[in-house]
Amino acid sequence: MTTGRTLAELGRLLGAEVVGDPTLAILGVAPLEEARPDELSFLHNPKYVSVARASRAGAVIVPDPALLPGRNLLVHPHPYLVHARALALFFPEAEPEEGIHPTAVVDATAELAEGVSVGPWTVVGPECRIGSGTVLGAGVVLGRQVEIGDECRLHPHVVVLDRCRIGNRCILQPGVVVGGDGFGYATVNGVHHKVPQVGIAVLEDDVEVGANTCIDRGALRETRIARGTKIDNLVQVAHNVTIGEGSLIVALVGLGGSTRIGEHAVLGGQVGTAGHLTIGDGAIVSGRAGVIKDVPPGAFYGGFPARPHREWLKGLAEQRKIPGLLERVARLEHRLAELEARSDGGDDDKQ
Amino acid sequence: MTTGRTLAELGRLLGAEVVGDPTLAILGVAPLEEARPDELSFLHNPKYVSVARASRAGAVIVPDPALLPGRNLLVHPHPYLVHARALALFFPEAEPEEGIHPTAVVDATAELAEGVSVGPWTVVGPECRIGSGTVLGAGVVLGRQVEIGDECRLHPHVVVLDRCRIGNRCILQPGVVVGGDGFGYATVNGVHHKVPQVGIAVLEDDVEVGANTCIDRGALRETRIARGTKIDNLVQVAHNVTIGEGSLIVALVGLGGSTRIGEHAVLGGQVGTAGHLTIGDGAIVSGRAGVIKDVPPGAFYGGFPARPHREWLKGLAEQRKIPGLLERVARLEHRLAELEARSDGGDDDKQ
Amino acid sequence: MTTGRTLAELGRLLGAEVVGDPTLAILGVAPLEEARPDELSFLHNPKYVSVARASRAGAVIVPDPALLPGRNLLVHPHPYLVHARALALFFPEAEPEEGIHPTAVVDATAELAEGVSVGPWTVVGPECRIGSGTVLGAGVVLGRQVEIGDECRLHPHVVVLDRCRIGNRCILQPGVVVGGDGFGYATVNGVHHKVPQVGIAVLEDDVEVGANTCIDRGALRETRIARGTKIDNLVQVAHNVTIGEGSLIVALVGLGGSTRIGEHAVLGGQVGTAGHLTIGDGAIVSGRAGVIKDVPPGAFYGGFPARPHREWLKGLAEQRKIPGLLERVARLEHRLAELEARSDGGDDDKQ
Repeated sequence: MTTGRTLAELGRLLGAEVVGDPTLAILGVAPLEEARPDELSFLHNPKYVSVARASRAGAVIVPDPALLPGRNLLVHPHPYLVHARALALFFPEAEPEEGIHPTAVVDATAELAEGVSVGPWTVVGPECRIGSGTVLGAGVVLGRQVEIGDECRLHPHVVVLDRCRIGNRCILQPGVVVGGDGFGYATVNGVHHKVPQVGIAVLEDDVEVGANTCIDRGALRETRIARGTKIDNLVQVAHNVTIGEGSLIVALVGLGGSTRIGEHAVLGGQVGTAGHLTIGDGAIVSGRAGVIKDVPPGAFYGGFPARPHREWLKGLAEQRKIPGLLERVARLEHRLAELEARSDGGDDDKQ
Repeated sequence: MTTGRTLAELGRLLGAEVVGDPTLAILGVAPLEEARPDELSFLHNPKYVSVARASRAGAVIVPDPALLPGRNLLVHPHPYLVHARALALFFPEAEPEEGIHPTAVVDATAELAEGVSVGPWTVVGPECRIGSGTVLGAGVVLGRQVEIGDECRLHPHVVVLDRCRIGNRCILQPGVVVGGDGFGYATVNGVHHKVPQVGIAVLEDDVEVGANTCIDRGALRETRIARGTKIDNLVQVAHNVTIGEGSLIVALVGLGGSTRIGEHAVLGGQVGTAGHLTIGDGAIVSGRAGVIKDVPPGAFYGGFPARPHREWLKGLAEQRKIPGLLERVARLEHRLAELEARSDGGDDDKQ
Repeated sequence: MTTGRTLAELGRLLGAEVVGDPTLAILGVAPLEEARPDELSFLHNPKYVSVARASRAGAVIVPDPALLPGRNLLVHPHPYLVHARALALFFPEAEPEEGIHPTAVVDATAELAEGVSVGPWTVVGPECRIGSGTVLGAGVVLGRQVEIGDECRLHPHVVVLDRCRIGNRCILQPGVVVGGDGFGYATVNGVHHKVPQVGIAVLEDDVEVGANTCIDRGALRETRIARGTKIDNLVQVAHNVTIGEGSLIVALVGLGGSTRIGEHAVLGGQVGTAGHLTIGDGAIVSGRAGVIKDVPPGAFYGGFPARPHREWLKGLAEQRKIPGLLERVARLEHRLAELEARSDGGDDDKQ
């Protein structure tokens, strides 16, 4: 944490409107419940307004000043965004060491732009090109002809293999593997012959990838993660997958080969998709769903096999009605048998 | 495997009572089915008593000498614990090389206690503190201000990022990532702005973490794994998760952000939990369950959505009754139609 | 991509029969939709025959020349295999640097056969034995007494721990961990005491393992992956698991301890198996299935709990009949009540 800022300074730096005492000194950021009078907090969801009122926070980021009358406020329509900016201000990233660590092995044919930082034990292969301001952490391995854009951050032990391309401002958490071979075999008489995976993986600008996630190279062409998409930890992205702009893929998701995911889609944790299907733009697939056929744009799907979320919930509710059905059918059988007996009796009477 | 021990020595070293020939020489440890007359085996579960009787093992660890009359025995109420001790005795861990490998990069401001072993290509960042007897394997990367306790073992390629803290006697299998960024974005008009993850991850004493498991740092505060908890391979622990003492988390589990898991809880393989929920002390969640609401203390849950395990099994059994229901309803419809016809006929007769 | 080949040369090199112009120059390989007149493509599945007819590909690999009359063809009963061979021809793997990188740390007691390539920052422990032509990528870590066969490829950051054995021609993608400790504890009064994992992991010849997959060592004996089995990314193979020859394990599968998988079995993505069960030879388990009891040889299973695939689908179809059942039962109740009323009325009339 750095030194404090006045509320006025914060308003200016974070792009928010100041309400209350502009000279108030703010030393840090904290959750509403824990914030002290010299700390900034934020109110994102109106349902926490009573928590905010009870908070000792010196100032609160709010979407509307009417929510917290009489308090020191930073007002902005997107409080969570301002919160993110405040964190970046109060917790600046540690400056990486400039230049190339003496233990790094950088091929003579690699081109590193200005301001690139290369950590210890990092390997940069032949004909790689690294953009300005990019930071390669310790133990990063880049194969041949890898391209990395500007202002990227590759954390320790990231591996990017031959010819794969990473855009600008991408963040790869530790242990990410980009460009491993896809799972492709020509099986003849029970023997699986490896099909060489000769495509590449491409991450466009502003993509973030979580720890130990694997993004396989294309079989012939590309696996592609479009601009601004964010992928969590331990996700499997198989060969030839494409993910559109601004999508979110939560941890432990498995995307089968050639899955096509649209823009601004959201896949919850542990979702799996069979290969060669399409999840439309803006679709949301809830956690643990198993997708075995296309999901239309804008749809909200869940369950396994995945179907419209409402249908899935309805199906679950219906299952809970089986015991009642069993009882009702047993009662019907009993009543019907009685009626039949009576009816037969009636018939007998008539004879 | 080291040289042999007499049964008497073993009894003393392993804390078990000796029954039979104290001079018997034992050279190793093996499963009941494979053990030779100079090997020790163990009988943990009384249902394997006939296997134990047929075993050629020279001696057997048992909870009760009456189970194997006439055999050489080590008697202890917890045979599996004595088995563990015997393995540690016969298969001592290879002594790590003392001191700092000449290729390691240890920052001048890092403090290493006595007896620390640092493997080749390992990086210890500024102001780290490493406790006595701790072993850092090859290619381990510690960020800035990382604290590691005494007698820990960090296997090759473990990454622990800035400010995270590991207690005493912790074991981190290869490829573990502690302190990667959590998955947090402020989304405005479809653009996901990264929320800086400024908290830390804390592992208390005696925690073990399996290969390639990821434990994200807290968003603002802490992700915390309490004392004695054991986590298997490829598990995702999201930001702000807390796990109580002595819990067990099996492979490929995904814990959503801010999940709170109590003490002595057990989560089977591939379980997933939605974020911001609580799994109580002593709760057991069976493999592949998907937890979307709180699990009470001591409960046994299963299925997706997770519910009490007995309810889940009952629900599965009920589903299997649908074909029978369909048949019974068809028969009822048929019989009722007949009765209605007859009743109408009767009415007709009366007219 | 290398220089071109005539169709005649390709036929000879790839073992396929040439139909059409043997002098045609082929410069590369591409999918049917994208191939240019100087590129080779393949027709694997007769359902794409119209795509193949519309393709501009200079030549097509086909199983039967009658499928594409008048075109330049390479004919072979297994077009996908010939496609794989063509890729290997046109996209030869980059030659690894020969010999041991000056930054590698190779123990003096390790034995490296001729033609072994050891990348930068790679560690080869005491008494390791590496077969001829094997390539160890950057940052690979081999423990003590590890054995690796001939012509293997260990990609960057692979870890193989003490005493584990890898056969010939194995491929380990980046981040694979072989020989981590299994998840075994003797729990006494809520304290989990580690059971030393003293077995090994063995990969036989021609095994491929995907990125960041974990294969634990045996508890006492072996975890074993038999010849020709292929494992995808992020798979968990617990201690004592055995997998027979020629099986396929797709991404994110979790195999519980002591699972026995037969030969030529296929497990779809995200499948989980409880421990100590058997999946028979040739069995297929569809993606996301949860296996909790044995799967017979040759069976096709799916769902959770896994059952014969047809039964699983039938069960899903039956669930969709619950709303109809509810309606029919309600109607029956109504009709029966009417009939009962009428019958009572009839009785009344008779009084």
